[in-house]
Amino acid sequence: MRPLCVTGLLLAAFLPARADEGMWLFNKPPVRQVREAHGFEITPAWLEHLQKSSVRIGKGGSGSFVSEQGLILTNHHVGSGMIEKLSTSGRDLLKDGFYARELAEELKCPDLEINILMSIEDVTGRVNAAIRADHSPEQAAAARRAVLAEIEKESLDATGLRSDVVSLFQGGAYHLYRYQQYTDVRLVFAPDAQAAAFGGDPDNFEFPRYCLDFCFFRAYQNGKPAQTPHFLKWQAAGAAEGELVFTSGHPGRTNRSVTLAQLEAMRDDGFPHRLEQIFRGETTLRAWSDRDQENARRAKGAIVGTQNGRKAIQSRLDGLLDPGFMADKSRREAELRSVLRENDTWKNADAAFERIARAEETKRGFALRYRMLEGAEAFGTSLFGIARILLRTADEAEKPDGQRLRGYQESSRASLELELFSEKPIHDNFELLRLENSLTSLCSKLGADDPTVVSILAGKSPFERAAELIHSTGLQEAALRRKLYAGGGKAVAASTDPMIALARLVDAEARELRAKAEALDEVIAQAHQQISQARFAIEGDSNYPDATSTLRLSYGVVKGYHDRIPVPAMTRFRGLQKRHEEQGGIPPFDLSETWKERAVALNPDTPLNFVSTHDITGGNSGSPMINRKGELVGLIFDSNAPGLLSDFAYSAEKGRAISVHPAGILEAMRVIYRADRVLAELGH
Amino acid sequence: MRPLCVTGLLLAAFLPARADEGMWLFNKPPVRQVREAHGFEITPAWLEHLQKSSVRIGKGGSGSFVSEQGLILTNHHVGSGMIEKLSTSGRDLLKDGFYARELAEELKCPDLEINILMSIEDVTGRVNAAIRADHSPEQAAAARRAVLAEIEKESLDATGLRSDVVSLFQGGAYHLYRYQQYTDVRLVFAPDAQAAAFGGDPDNFEFPRYCLDFCFFRAYQNGKPAQTPHFLKWQAAGAAEGELVFTSGHPGRTNRSVTLAQLEAMRDDGFPHRLEQIFRGETTLRAWSDRDQENARRAKGAIVGTQNGRKAIQSRLDGLLDPGFMADKSRREAELRSVLRENDTWKNADAAFERIARAEETKRGFALRYRMLEGAEAFGTSLFGIARILLRTADEAEKPDGQRLRGYQESSRASLELELFSEKPIHDNFELLRLENSLTSLCSKLGADDPTVVSILAGKSPFERAAELIHSTGLQEAALRRKLYAGGGKAVAASTDPMIALARLVDAEARELRAKAEALDEVIAQAHQQISQARFAIEGDSNYPDATSTLRLSYGVVKGYHDRIPVPAMTRFRGLQKRHEEQGGIPPFDLSETWKERAVALNPDTPLNFVSTHDITGGNSGSPMINRKGELVGLIFDSNAPGLLSDFAYSAEKGRAISVHPAGILEAMRVIYRADRVLAELGH
Repeated sequence: MRPLCVTGLLLAAFLPARADEGMWLFNKPPVRQVREAHGFEITPAWLEHLQKSSVRIGKGGSGSFVSEQGLILTNHHVGSGMIEKLSTSGRDLLKDGFYARELAEELKCPDLEINILMSIEDVTGRVNAAIRADHSPEQAAAARRAVLAEIEKESLDATGLRSDVVSLFQGGAYHLYRYQQYTDVRLVFAPDAQAAAFGGDPDNFEFPRYCLDFCFFRAYQNGKPAQTPHFLKWQAAGAAEGELVFTSGHPGRTNRSVTLAQLEAMRDDGFPHRLEQIFRGETTLRAWSDRDQENARRAKGAIVGTQNGRKAIQSRLDGLLDPGFMADKSRREAELRSVLRENDTWKNADAAFERIARAEETKRGFALRYRMLEGAEAFGTSLFGIARILLRTADEAEKPDGQRLRGYQESSRASLELELFSEKPIHDNFELLRLENSLTSLCSKLGADDPTVVSILAGKSPFERAAELIHSTGLQEAALRRKLYAGGGKAVAASTDPMIALARLVDAEARELRAKAEALDEVIAQAHQQISQARFAIEGDSNYPDATSTLRLSYGVVKGYHDRIPVPAMTRFRGLQKRHEEQGGIPPFDLSETWKERAVALNPDTPLNFVSTHDITGGNSGSPMINRKGELVGLIFDSNAPGLLSDFAYSAEKGRAISVHPAGILEAMRVIYRADRVLAELGH
Repeated sequence: MRPLCVTGLLLAAFLPARADEGMWLFNKPPVRQVREAHGFEITPAWLEHLQKSSVRIGKGGSGSFVSEQGLILTNHHVGSGMIEKLSTSGRDLLKDGFYARELAEELKCPDLEINILMSIEDVTGRVNAAIRADHSPEQAAAARRAVLAEIEKESLDATGLRSDVVSLFQGGAYHLYRYQQYTDVRLVFAPDAQAAAFGGDPDNFEFPRYCLDFCFFRAYQNGKPAQTPHFLKWQAAGAAEGELVFTSGHPGRTNRSVTLAQLEAMRDDGFPHRLEQIFRGETTLRAWSDRDQENARRAKGAIVGTQNGRKAIQSRLDGLLDPGFMADKSRREAELRSVLRENDTWKNADAAFERIARAEETKRGFALRYRMLEGAEAFGTSLFGIARILLRTADEAEKPDGQRLRGYQESSRASLELELFSEKPIHDNFELLRLENSLTSLCSKLGADDPTVVSILAGKSPFERAAELIHSTGLQEAALRRKLYAGGGKAVAASTDPMIALARLVDAEARELRAKAEALDEVIAQAHQQISQARFAIEGDSNYPDATSTLRLSYGVVKGYHDRIPVPAMTRFRGLQKRHEEQGGIPPFDLSETWKERAVALNPDTPLNFVSTHDITGGNSGSPMINRKGELVGLIFDSNAPGLLSDFAYSAEKGRAISVHPAGILEAMRVIYRADRVLAELGH
């Protein structure tokens, strides 16, 4: 579509005016932009190779194939949940690291799936055709759900590939993504957490930085290493300062094209609520962790995750609490709306902003109840999650595929079963802690005299009720879960397991809240669709959409920045040693005994971490950095703090992606970890 | 007053039916109860000696004189705020401990006052006579404030003693307390924090326990040690299990006679809000502390205080979330009210419960705003506190004493000046952290578009605004504070200091909120007065009132308890060593190098900590335990977790006070710390 002629001001406000901006779709790559800015021609073959070398790890991480035997490189912090699940009280793989000296020693993960994007198809027309103008929001939401399930089921049946229809441009477009899925994934190598997460929470989202935040998994098929012809070769020299580099990964979510009203709802309600829950969770987990060393081991991953979330949300909230930013957003939105109002075709799009504001306000009226009951924040144990899956799987199975709740379609079955049958360790004392904490939060949020709260507590205090539930449920055992799942609705209905009873107790109200929220989301989606169409007409449709956990291509250059003082683009092993010493070697600035013994043989000049101008966000962790030749020249693991504001707008001034340098990985693998088998497989 | 005859059930519900219950007034001591239960006769002379040996430390701690040269024994955690203020980045007295080998080395505290209760006078009649039946709540609150100020001023002028009228029985009685005040107090000895707070947050409110939670200060007058003829001699053998022991201290606040509606307000609003702020504060402080060792030193005291508050509030909230407890409270209140309703004299007292419920509901409607603006939670820096004192002192000085805000009367001047002119260190980066955090909380709580919030932020983000305020104010300098204070209203009005400008900006709304709250508190106080009078008629007036930070006498016995397994009453040095080892010596279970060198000479059988059945609460920290002969046999420093429920009801089943044993103190002072000068002064 050809951009219409509007004021330059408006174009400036909505087109990616800044170099290196954008999280581009693989089916709408920034060919022109890269050609114009960097003189490099993205070819279909180059793109396909990168796409099929890229791996989505679990639900929210990125990675890449780095050998033709399915070897996967990702971040240690992306793999750490699995590494923790593979640990026991006697064998702490997070703390000590892991190296499979032989193929047979590689450790199978209890519930890790990876997905490789094989194809993309635009199905916007078919989805929109299913919605009639006279549909109520509830009817439209149902119709949309039905057509999405239908497309996914058709595709699954036709190709055998996992098939997800994803919404892009806030509902402005729908694309069908087909994935090759692997559910047998094994741990190959992980460094100790001291090296992987050197500097811990204090250094998280900071630069200069000194982390070996990498690990290796391997995809298996039929019990053997998967054949993966598309993989990335390593360029140990990395990229030079100023060099054009690409990254391919799964940025989770950005909010660049939401409306001012939506940002205000995030600023005054959504983010404060999440932060509050994070503060509660982090405090509770740390207090429990401090009690003894086994507690500390069990809670470690959850604490790191919470701390990471805290910094991410705090930075975003800081961004929204900057009156200058909000004023700018407000001005740009007002300009767009004034253009829309003056044009008969787009008038609806102007009114759409008001509909979104009203829908957000209505959602906010029951948001707390929704989060507690349907969002299950009141039930902070994975055992409740299991109970709900069992209950809802049984209930949903009786409906046609297209009428089921999203996530319970046939196309999601493999993922659901992987989660349900996972043999990951479940520690009763940890689950009890979290459930007591969340039930207390429920009482405080909805009031202890709220009828639903009273029925959930069943005449007991949060602690007593949590203890009763955790000690009486049998859902810790995967065997029981398998049995109930196999027995279907009848078995689940007959179950007297108290956790299932609890899930059943709240299910009617939770579903009702969900239906209300989905109807409002439908209103918002339709409104955004109108706005998107107007924007396509103004800007052309060659722009990139907000992040949605789908595979995206970003480009940029290796580049330092200025933060009161100049910050060079690269750190080296020398700097790691210095920071270790100046912090007195106190955790999280400590190094392992092995490290201290062998580090003398490390070349202190070897690059360790570096920054670049790529437009990324959470979910990009583990993304490979690739040079023009398609060689791996880095491994993204973080943003700096200014980079976190990319949620709302890209800025190349101070915002930076942070990567591990391939030379640093290879040097540590050789000198410290002596992981010769993996080095050989990488060809180094 | 003679108890009227009512049902036994009701009497059981309201009289202290349990042995050892009660925080008794020194002018209404439990002479009969102790005689009947323990056969000991409390004499006026015994009581006077104990009263005048007891010391209130700062605003919320307890202690006692232990030599006639003004030597004071209290808890390390009561003194730790001062010990921290006396530390510098090069000399960490909290971490390393302190010992003045000579009198001249004793360190003067920047802002510690201590008070010794000299006399009590019942002024209930005079206070109540000032309130007329036709007064509106606002008029009544003003009249009450005026008469309190008048009584205090008269007493101060007549005796030269600090004079406070305190409200007891939720407003059922008013007593005038006169104190000998010392503002020159010096640090004599403190153990290292590892020994004083061994086990840190994990062991806080737990038993068995192994803490040397003591330190020594000295009161000075005219630059010389104060002469204190009333002091406690040490009984190194301590008290035997089952022995009758007394304690005299300043329990801060209990809520045993509040109404069900007031408990519900605490359960659903007050405690959840405080916990939320604690979670936010603890997370923020720990994250900042983890960044480097100097941060850690600066934040240490604040973190410990926050963690202590968290456990205290969580336990209380747990108690209120126990439906059994609330049902019991509800039943007992219903019984009392049914008795009241049937009696013409007390009918008003029944209706008073409704008035309290309505007033609580009204308060809740603006509680958040009140906390943020008048409670100054939005301005989490001590510099704002200083600015507000300067501003309000200037404003209030122009009014007659009786019309000033409470806390700004002539009788409070000495305390106010001590705080205002304190030379305690103020670290800009720490103040910035706390102010940014609290301004962010303000935005989240009241909404970033709230007009007051907008004017506070002045077009900047919370971080920018906090940085501007902290870096531009001059109130870090005590000299400037003295100058503004001396210059009075004119100097303050002319000041362009941005922190004073901020205090001025919010003052009108803050005062308005305070006036609204005080009018409602007056409604509640009058209602409670009616209920109290009815209860006096039923129970007699020999009962004890809720804690109010005034000096109280409790009695009980040294006694273990049963918590799934039997818990013996006493721990010994042997147990300390064992816990240190089983926790791997990791902080907070570490011991100092000096300790590890010298501990071999400690007698492992020496008692360290012990539990007893005393009815205490927060504020009792530092209270001496005394035997029948008036000898010191312990130093209270904590409750166990069940003991925290004493806020709402006393229970001797599992609830226990925890004390340091005098033998443990003396042994450590001799073997580890070699503090011979102090030992000699104690006569050991």
